[in-house]
Amino acid sequence: MDIEHYMHTVGRQAREASRLVARADSQAKDQALRAIAGAIRRESAALLAANQEDLAAARAAGLEAALLDRLALSPKAVAAMAEGVEQIAALADPVGEISDLKVRPSGIQVGRMRVPLGVIGIIYEARPNVTADAAALCLKSGNASILRGGSEAFRSNRTIASLVYEGLASAGLPQTAVQVIETTDRAAVGRLITMREYVDVLVPRGGKGLISRLLAEARVPMIQHLDGNCHVYVDDDADPEKALQIVENAKTQRYGTCNTAESLLVARSVASRLLPTIAALLIHKGVEIRGCPETLSLVGEARPATEEDYATEFLAPIISVRVVDGLDQAIEHIDRYGSHHTDAIVTENYTSAMRFLREVDSSSVMVNASTRFADGFEYGLGAEIGISTDKIHARGPVGLEGLTSQKWVVLGNGEVRS
Amino acid sequence: MDIEHYMHTVGRQAREASRLVARADSQAKDQALRAIAGAIRRESAALLAANQEDLAAARAAGLEAALLDRLALSPKAVAAMAEGVEQIAALADPVGEISDLKVRPSGIQVGRMRVPLGVIGIIYEARPNVTADAAALCLKSGNASILRGGSEAFRSNRTIASLVYEGLASAGLPQTAVQVIETTDRAAVGRLITMREYVDVLVPRGGKGLISRLLAEARVPMIQHLDGNCHVYVDDDADPEKALQIVENAKTQRYGTCNTAESLLVARSVASRLLPTIAALLIHKGVEIRGCPETLSLVGEARPATEEDYATEFLAPIISVRVVDGLDQAIEHIDRYGSHHTDAIVTENYTSAMRFLREVDSSSVMVNASTRFADGFEYGLGAEIGISTDKIHARGPVGLEGLTSQKWVVLGNGEVRS
Repeated sequence: MDIEHYMHTVGRQAREASRLVARADSQAKDQALRAIAGAIRRESAALLAANQEDLAAARAAGLEAALLDRLALSPKAVAAMAEGVEQIAALADPVGEISDLKVRPSGIQVGRMRVPLGVIGIIYEARPNVTADAAALCLKSGNASILRGGSEAFRSNRTIASLVYEGLASAGLPQTAVQVIETTDRAAVGRLITMREYVDVLVPRGGKGLISRLLAEARVPMIQHLDGNCHVYVDDDADPEKALQIVENAKTQRYGTCNTAESLLVARSVASRLLPTIAALLIHKGVEIRGCPETLSLVGEARPATEEDYATEFLAPIISVRVVDGLDQAIEHIDRYGSHHTDAIVTENYTSAMRFLREVDSSSVMVNASTRFADGFEYGLGAEIGISTDKIHARGPVGLEGLTSQKWVVLGNGEVRS
Repeated sequence: MDIEHYMHTVGRQAREASRLVARADSQAKDQALRAIAGAIRRESAALLAANQEDLAAARAAGLEAALLDRLALSPKAVAAMAEGVEQIAALADPVGEISDLKVRPSGIQVGRMRVPLGVIGIIYEARPNVTADAAALCLKSGNASILRGGSEAFRSNRTIASLVYEGLASAGLPQTAVQVIETTDRAAVGRLITMREYVDVLVPRGGKGLISRLLAEARVPMIQHLDGNCHVYVDDDADPEKALQIVENAKTQRYGTCNTAESLLVARSVASRLLPTIAALLIHKGVEIRGCPETLSLVGEARPATEEDYATEFLAPIISVRVVDGLDQAIEHIDRYGSHHTDAIVTENYTSAMRFLREVDSSSVMVNASTRFADGFEYGLGAEIGISTDKIHARGPVGLEGLTSQKWVVLGNGEVRS
């Protein structure tokens, strides 16, 4: 396959289709989404069979268990995929919404209209459900999409793609509104991330390795996050009960998610009172504590933390712990070691709460709540395509709105500028 | 000078200062801005003297008249510069504003807080007033800035910089919150546009040559527009009087601005009735008409338009004119030849107006108003740092809000995720 020619064609088709989906009314888009969900349900057996072939090939190639786990589809997972697409159909259409319309002294009315970004490139690893999910979010937000899944999920993704194409066609929308790359050649990714003339934004979904590689080479703007090194800071004025529950939930509810707490900071004035109890609970749940010297003196089971530990997203039952002077040092620590993803303070003090909210430079900042809430569904976005730790365009969980832009609209009655 | 070392220092200082200005309260920022304005007024004579030196050097180097004109400062221009800075001080502070706070089923409240972007790099050509203007907008929005003006304005910019530093210091803000590059070496620009670790966004202000060069080489996201090829479309249902006034204003009020109309599209059904009158008025004002064959048959003085003419931002008393079938062909033409800057329809037809607003993919779309309104002041932004034709982040006139981002804030009462 001539990758250069192929990707050029995919890009041009996406650009052309983007004009049509941008103008499509909500009814057509939702009809397509419901048809896609219906097709996924109807072809569940075929999809599971294709997935079995991917799994067999992956096992033969000696892929590790975690990857196989993410690759595997079950009848339940297929049903959830169809439901996810239907949920996106049920969301309000963001496109065309006019807001902030104000009359100006010249007589013109000036406002903003929400519009699609154009063409979105999605690059993802094993999970095949991303194919349906990302295609649905891009379509609902009026964008054309180009999807490049992991080579290990090639057969699963190709099957889902055919169901997406069927759904688009049944609603009179161009099939090229969603294009799944039909080659596992890595050169296709190289082209996708540099085709500025055809691709408006990239949303990579995958591990740190993938994201770093793309960041180094992409010429197209990217909505991404590299790391989720999230902190909980237990302030001098923390409510002990809230501190215990929030740390437990933030660290142990799930170990492998990007909004899991990886580091605990405790104000010195309450450390001897609160830290032993909190540590005991974590240890009881099987979490390894890596602490500063003061932590070690309060928690017998703790191991010493290295500089490296404070900067690490463990994605595992390990937490770094540090006793700090108070709010200022906590903010400094988060600024130095954190990844600007999600950080929380536990405090009953109004001024400390407000300073933490204002001064911690992360995509989500929280008072008296678990970092695990940093999620598109929990925030009421309906769904999320990813989480951004960038400040340009979208920050934090990115839903339909993050896949759109706003243009200015001016409503006049013959006004001219003087 | 070791440019690599120098720019690294500038970048690091900007990053450090950005944390302090992000936290600075409105009072300190406004005090600094008023002090800067006061210093500009007080040192008007010194500033004009420095500008005379720049002008003498520019004349000696044989710079063209248009460039000399943009470089020259007058006592009136210096007063306007000081006033501009005071106007920015008087604007509402966007930083820290919390919006859209909503209670979620889990009990947490989720909202968004407006925060600075961090470090803004400004690259501009001759006009020295940009130094004061850009520094003020970045400071007010809580950002640190690195300014790189044209080498021909070096002495003027250095003088303004010293007044900015004085104003910052007098309000207890770090002088490194605004840094004017102290070398005319081009390598400094090369570093500035690739220092992703230090610079969050670039705002270039200058001609198409500058912007294209930067676009090709920058690794930092950019808020920019390349071209302003703006259209007025006179629809089948246009009010003849409004059409005449809007075309006249959009084309002739100023020839050199990016929101000036460069192309006129007229629906065939009204062309013979309206085009001769509109063309006569433009010709009377000294505008050259370059038209399609139908235009030529209606307007004796018109010259034939080339493909190239339709794609050109003339920035001069020239307009391209085409008779089109109607709305669909007008939208197609704008999509093909336009620059996604600002386009207007003149119509009394509701459905045509709505379709034009929705389907024309430009940063500003207008109904029955002159394209000349596409401007931060006219839109009520108070001031503008530039106009963006990009869809990522900021689109259209960019004011204080475009120099900020929004982070998520979560206010809880001990909630955990289940």
